[in-house]
Amino acid sequence: MTIQITGVETADVRFPTSATHSGSDAMNPDPDYSAAYVTLHTDGDVEGHGLAFTIGRGNDVVTKAIEVIAEPLAGTGVDDLARQMPLILRALTQDSHIRWLGPEKGVMHLAAAAVLNAVWDLWAKQRGMPLWQLLLSLTPEELVACLDFRHVQDVLTPGEAVRMLAEGRLGHAERLAQLEEHGYPAYITSAGWLGYDDDTVRRLVKDSLDDGWRHFKLKVGGQLDDDLRRALFLRDLIGPDGRLMLDANQVWEVPEAIAAISVLSACDPYWIEEPTSPDDILGHAAIAQAIAPVRVATGEHVHNRVMFKQFLAAGAMAVCQADSCRLAGVNENIVVYLLAAKHGVPVCPHAGGVGLCEFVQHLSIFDYLSISGSLDGRMIEYVDHLHEMFVDPVKIRRGAYVVPTAPGFSTQMRADAVAEYRYPEGGAWAAR
Amino acid sequence: MTIQITGVETADVRFPTSATHSGSDAMNPDPDYSAAYVTLHTDGDVEGHGLAFTIGRGNDVVTKAIEVIAEPLAGTGVDDLARQMPLILRALTQDSHIRWLGPEKGVMHLAAAAVLNAVWDLWAKQRGMPLWQLLLSLTPEELVACLDFRHVQDVLTPGEAVRMLAEGRLGHAERLAQLEEHGYPAYITSAGWLGYDDDTVRRLVKDSLDDGWRHFKLKVGGQLDDDLRRALFLRDLIGPDGRLMLDANQVWEVPEAIAAISVLSACDPYWIEEPTSPDDILGHAAIAQAIAPVRVATGEHVHNRVMFKQFLAAGAMAVCQADSCRLAGVNENIVVYLLAAKHGVPVCPHAGGVGLCEFVQHLSIFDYLSISGSLDGRMIEYVDHLHEMFVDPVKIRRGAYVVPTAPGFSTQMRADAVAEYRYPEGGAWAAR
Repeated sequence: MTIQITGVETADVRFPTSATHSGSDAMNPDPDYSAAYVTLHTDGDVEGHGLAFTIGRGNDVVTKAIEVIAEPLAGTGVDDLARQMPLILRALTQDSHIRWLGPEKGVMHLAAAAVLNAVWDLWAKQRGMPLWQLLLSLTPEELVACLDFRHVQDVLTPGEAVRMLAEGRLGHAERLAQLEEHGYPAYITSAGWLGYDDDTVRRLVKDSLDDGWRHFKLKVGGQLDDDLRRALFLRDLIGPDGRLMLDANQVWEVPEAIAAISVLSACDPYWIEEPTSPDDILGHAAIAQAIAPVRVATGEHVHNRVMFKQFLAAGAMAVCQADSCRLAGVNENIVVYLLAAKHGVPVCPHAGGVGLCEFVQHLSIFDYLSISGSLDGRMIEYVDHLHEMFVDPVKIRRGAYVVPTAPGFSTQMRADAVAEYRYPEGGAWAAR
Repeated sequence: MTIQITGVETADVRFPTSATHSGSDAMNPDPDYSAAYVTLHTDGDVEGHGLAFTIGRGNDVVTKAIEVIAEPLAGTGVDDLARQMPLILRALTQDSHIRWLGPEKGVMHLAAAAVLNAVWDLWAKQRGMPLWQLLLSLTPEELVACLDFRHVQDVLTPGEAVRMLAEGRLGHAERLAQLEEHGYPAYITSAGWLGYDDDTVRRLVKDSLDDGWRHFKLKVGGQLDDDLRRALFLRDLIGPDGRLMLDANQVWEVPEAIAAISVLSACDPYWIEEPTSPDDILGHAAIAQAIAPVRVATGEHVHNRVMFKQFLAAGAMAVCQADSCRLAGVNENIVVYLLAAKHGVPVCPHAGGVGLCEFVQHLSIFDYLSISGSLDGRMIEYVDHLHEMFVDPVKIRRGAYVVPTAPGFSTQMRADAVAEYRYPEGGAWAAR
């Protein structure tokens, strides 16, 4: 007896985070953290869940896109997902009509990410494993069959990916035991939103230090003298041994970025994140060359594997911040992790948002167990909001992620949260 | 008395072109040429029209995106568009929530293009001028105020753009007289769709030669020996003096492209178009270096000015094929034309599709009158379908575009065509 996907349900879910300036940065002063949320219903006792993270307006367009592309999934056999996944990936990202709207970028690619992640969640639940364990349970050949190497084969072929995964998993049991004891390293962004005043930052940093955090990120890209004052203030609070990351959220022109970072270097930053447009590979390369040894980090808005291929080849990205819901789901994320490993660049995935911390922990754990084999320079971003909306929220212990054990991809939201924050009809919005 | 925009109306219009293989290529075997169409109603006697060109599925998502972003236009004063245009551009492309979905790419950027082009059409109609003449009637300062130089200022500043436009328009009256006599040079794609058999190609090429066409484009990217046979056959038909362009529509990997073009060089191609992923700047640069003196042409899927900036800087694009409806309307197109002029690269805009020939003629004419001042290596693509759906279709004389004179941007479709091909309720679809 096999069970089947019986239908696709979407929800436009928005949280009114702009009211508190949580998530505020130089580019995004008033985000309402949102999710274009998809549920794959089945005739069995498992469901699949996925989402695209947005910051408010336009979440309805992504929701509509999910409806359009996910509809053909009805009828897919859940026990057959190993064989179906390559076909599903191709249908969602390589359908020529849909591809015209990108290719592989923007709303349609966000929608593909949500749907693919829901399929992975369903597959992992059907196998009774957390997603990282499902990935590890597949042979390198099975996993590579689920990936798309189109337009990156000048750098990485499927055959080479199989070899990398086969070698990468050697010794994974020891690494897993180590993760289970110490957790996966993390840094925290919650103290440094641009809209927070100094007293708020001071209080949050002290609390975080007490909780065991050592690595912090600060939003910059406002007035330069104000950025510098805040950065030095934060460096003073965390001491010389903590890592201090700066994040400009794309607001600078290339020459402006170089000038600003030379000033901000006074706080000994570990990296500068998104100094300019996420499309500007050559601009990032110029910045990287000018500001060394400060690292350039980017990736949360880098839209597909072809772009990552170039950022890595051009030396434009010292830290790879792939986004679990902007790339085409687990599938394209693994291709990017492989590309990064080939270039010796650590992946420190973008998280925060809605559910991103929940998702990326699986990918980083799989990276350590089966691709990079290293924690050197690797940290998962952590932001302390909206976890309570999820059925299986992340657990943090002394500034590190605890290895998740529940079946699935941790992508399922609580039904009461979806009902309350559904836009515009949920109770949280009706009251506004 | 000023007139105002009173409302926005959208239509999902699709033409069943897949039935005849018109428009077929190696990436897109069965396009249904479509338009996410927008009308800006006013309380006066003018309307604005714009569209995003798609190839079928997903046209409803773009239509939805247009609804979401265009709604705030209601209430805008039509006599005030010179002052409003910069604000409208910013609202459509730099709203932080909408920007998160790109930035400036994919569905939301296509929607912005449709809406911005409708505003330009409305403005030109209100002024009683064809779009190219409206552009020429603005001072360089007025026009530059309507453009966005964000993230390209390392190469082109607004001040430099003003100087380029001021110098560029010197002598424009003579150039206009010349265009009015001879038309703007063009090439034709209609004979070389991948789905056409040899007899069809022979018949269409002979007809086109009789009509005065000398420059032809052939779709390649199928089986290489078949591509070569067709290319040599077409070269034989048009003779050694005609230009023969090849178009692979992105199907090759980088090394595969280099190998294929070395074989296809036997037909003496003028350019090879879209040899690989439109996101692969460095890949195009590698191909360009390997295949010289054959030119690399690309641009119809290059999604914004930041990408064009890099293609031009990297020597990855010898011919710039900007798309009037993929870039953010007239505004971003002009920035790209300026960037191309600065690099001495000719713009041969992407056309065909639905209405693109109608739109780009205005941009190329303005380019000649006010930016490049040259026709050297410049041609507008021509495809001979769907013109009858437009109120002011292009006119072709002896293989050249006749300068349009009707007020507006030639973007208005016939009301009966919109009704007949509206998807799925129009008569053309109800009968299927």
